[in-house]
Amino acid sequence: MSRAAIIGGGVIGGGWAARFLLNGWDVVVFDPDPGAARKIAEVLDNARASLPALYARPLPPEGSLTFAASIAQAVAGADWVQESVSERLALKHKVYAEIAAHLPEGGFIASSTSGFKASDLASGGAPVVVVHPFNPVYLLPLTEISGDPSLCDTAAAVVTSIGMHPLVLRKEIDAFIGNRFQEAVWREALWMLKDGIATTSEIDDAIRMSFGLRWAQMGLFETYRIAGGEAGMQSYIEQFGPTLSWPWTKLTDVPDLDAALIETIGSQSDAQSGHLGIRELERLRDDNLVAILRGLRRTGSGAGGVVLRHEQTLEAEGELDGLPITLSQSVPVTWTDYNGHMNEAAYLELGTWATDGLMALVGADEAYVSAGKSFFTVDTRIRYLGEVHRGTMLTVTTQVLEGAGKKMKLFHRVTKPDGTLAATLETLLLHTDLTTRRACAPEPQVAEALETLAAVHAGRPAEGAGGSVGQRN
Amino acid sequence: MSRAAIIGGGVIGGGWAARFLLNGWDVVVFDPDPGAARKIAEVLDNARASLPALYARPLPPEGSLTFAASIAQAVAGADWVQESVSERLALKHKVYAEIAAHLPEGGFIASSTSGFKASDLASGGAPVVVVHPFNPVYLLPLTEISGDPSLCDTAAAVVTSIGMHPLVLRKEIDAFIGNRFQEAVWREALWMLKDGIATTSEIDDAIRMSFGLRWAQMGLFETYRIAGGEAGMQSYIEQFGPTLSWPWTKLTDVPDLDAALIETIGSQSDAQSGHLGIRELERLRDDNLVAILRGLRRTGSGAGGVVLRHEQTLEAEGELDGLPITLSQSVPVTWTDYNGHMNEAAYLELGTWATDGLMALVGADEAYVSAGKSFFTVDTRIRYLGEVHRGTMLTVTTQVLEGAGKKMKLFHRVTKPDGTLAATLETLLLHTDLTTRRACAPEPQVAEALETLAAVHAGRPAEGAGGSVGQRN
Repeated sequence: MSRAAIIGGGVIGGGWAARFLLNGWDVVVFDPDPGAARKIAEVLDNARASLPALYARPLPPEGSLTFAASIAQAVAGADWVQESVSERLALKHKVYAEIAAHLPEGGFIASSTSGFKASDLASGGAPVVVVHPFNPVYLLPLTEISGDPSLCDTAAAVVTSIGMHPLVLRKEIDAFIGNRFQEAVWREALWMLKDGIATTSEIDDAIRMSFGLRWAQMGLFETYRIAGGEAGMQSYIEQFGPTLSWPWTKLTDVPDLDAALIETIGSQSDAQSGHLGIRELERLRDDNLVAILRGLRRTGSGAGGVVLRHEQTLEAEGELDGLPITLSQSVPVTWTDYNGHMNEAAYLELGTWATDGLMALVGADEAYVSAGKSFFTVDTRIRYLGEVHRGTMLTVTTQVLEGAGKKMKLFHRVTKPDGTLAATLETLLLHTDLTTRRACAPEPQVAEALETLAAVHAGRPAEGAGGSVGQRN
Repeated sequence: MSRAAIIGGGVIGGGWAARFLLNGWDVVVFDPDPGAARKIAEVLDNARASLPALYARPLPPEGSLTFAASIAQAVAGADWVQESVSERLALKHKVYAEIAAHLPEGGFIASSTSGFKASDLASGGAPVVVVHPFNPVYLLPLTEISGDPSLCDTAAAVVTSIGMHPLVLRKEIDAFIGNRFQEAVWREALWMLKDGIATTSEIDDAIRMSFGLRWAQMGLFETYRIAGGEAGMQSYIEQFGPTLSWPWTKLTDVPDLDAALIETIGSQSDAQSGHLGIRELERLRDDNLVAILRGLRRTGSGAGGVVLRHEQTLEAEGELDGLPITLSQSVPVTWTDYNGHMNEAAYLELGTWATDGLMALVGADEAYVSAGKSFFTVDTRIRYLGEVHRGTMLTVTTQVLEGAGKKMKLFHRVTKPDGTLAATLETLLLHTDLTTRRACAPEPQVAEALETLAAVHAGRPAEGAGGSVGQRN
């Protein structure tokens, strides 16, 4: 068990506390703000709800969180000291002197500073290394590390052990890397607001509907490498030269894109991405974009909202073989697995959406659910009848096997474009009151619509229904 | 059915062609490049594999793609003309003259230009509107639109109808919005390369491990609004004033962050995000980040790779009630649904990962699969026994019901932290040759390990196993 001292418990300090705690470290916080405990508790709640959900294995048991009455008490016995106080150099130096007086032998101070260089921070008492994270610290991996090389190595190992990505700077530079980029965009955005080109909301949309999606997964250079296509990075970059003299930003000081710089970019890009061809990079980019866009569908944020709104304009389903089509879905790459076909779990995603489609058809739609009633699944059997691959358009029809009282039993058929069955799903649901979480009868109009559909579908065969796992048709 | 003329069929023109085709438009391409047909076919392949997968409804039937021998032939009868030729003004004006001579009455030219203003592009013959997309055009929603206001409205409606997000500029500006930001970052990145601060690969990592993830879902201002916390946007922005005079970028020309500009930002931000409190915004941000990070887990790109590598360092599973723990998983927000609990399909995600865990345990691990053998699921039944909520840590144990010859029948129990069962999954798999896609016997060491485990687990009860859907325990 290791122990971290968090000096300064604001948004950044609180984020560090959460990341250490959830990775099994004991954490001692010092912050004179009387609201610090409440604020850290709120950050920790957010972190508990999100960080563990990234992993398919449990994080270590959560460490203990305590609050120290003094820097001395916080630092005593600490294996790691993270300073996240305000960005005032005099304050930082004062805090460092106190830390240094109590720092265990061989220890150093890790500073969350977003602007000062390690050489600015250096104090007489103890070594200081820049270990600069990004908010929310418990979710974003990047830490920029700068200072004494051997201490940087130690710091890199520690942040790696708590699930972060260390980027050790090759040279000292004000504001490091991430914030310099953000500052460049920020300054440009201020000009746009001032000149009335776009509002804050329009600027945010411009970012999150375009290059924000690219930069979440590949960054700047690999994206340009793809744009350059088969001709290669170096020849692509050469074209950029003239744009540096165009009035495309309010920047005035630009480096000379000479042959040496072009060669640097070309060879570094080859080292970075040269093991993949342009087609492979395009495919990787598209796979990542599909994954991100499908993720954003859920909350409707940014590009996810665009997808959902467009979907509403697409034609609703029709019928197939006398049964309602309750879903048409092209297989996204995120649904395929190491066996080179659609993963078994995705068949049930089809089933759950087809059930939603059938519910909407009998009037148990979004408004019905919002009013407090729904159907809960209690039992489902899936028969896997054929392999399905990425990009295949699947059609799901739904037959009502039973629709009376609280019970709704459905039979979904998943059909491939050639008409063959990929799977069948037999699923039993109970109508449920969302407040009491107990089964109850549906509203009359839903009950009637369901009974009508059950009567229309009665007597149709449902291959394999009623059987147990492994039982042949 | 509508018809689009695509003048210039490179990466951008090809992307437009794909987006129109997949949204049911007929497309006629003019491009003198003899390789145009091949290049567009490649873009179209990528688009077919990705765009439809964003939606739970089918896109309209794909339109027809033809190649015209002349601009006149391409433009005749077109409802939309998209110009994506090289960024040379003289070339564009020459092309526009040809288009204008054949453009249907009332038509206009939409230009993909990434730099020229509509007033630069204006030609005598036909109106020109800037309709600037981002690569890949078939996946990224943003189009920046600028020119005659009523034509901009028409253009906005058309791009919306093919699933894009129109951003009509309030004033003309060189390079519009997205590219100005990218140019600002690009210039800063060139300095970093030139000064030896970081390599292209390190810069890409810095972007995609930090603010790239933020900008994919919220953009710049809403992110800062969250950082400002309870004190509000305006007071947060006021602090930024001094940083504009710091040497944090190579920019030298910055606007004065005076009271009027601060007020503009504050009130626009309120209009944009004021309907959500800071805690709600934080939660939305975290939900989006979890969705994106879980999406990136699949390919291992950027932050997804960090998660996977950290997961490898976490403790492997132990035992529970004498059965191997094959999965421990905290419920991500992406697994919950409108009923306020974990969606039925997520139970099977647990099941598929637990099956992976059991396979690894008997030696049918990644290396085994890479060597060409695996298990395919043929039949699964899930009994839903209890509701589960976001953030709950679930433990899955696996009992081998049958493990002989080609057959492997497993029984997964999903347990909540209080020890109660959330679900059981009974699943039958067949050992399969990944080349022939036919069932076959496992390699001897896997067969033996499976038989051993089956013998150890024999005679244990497996509640509900062997039953059919709806049958009580």
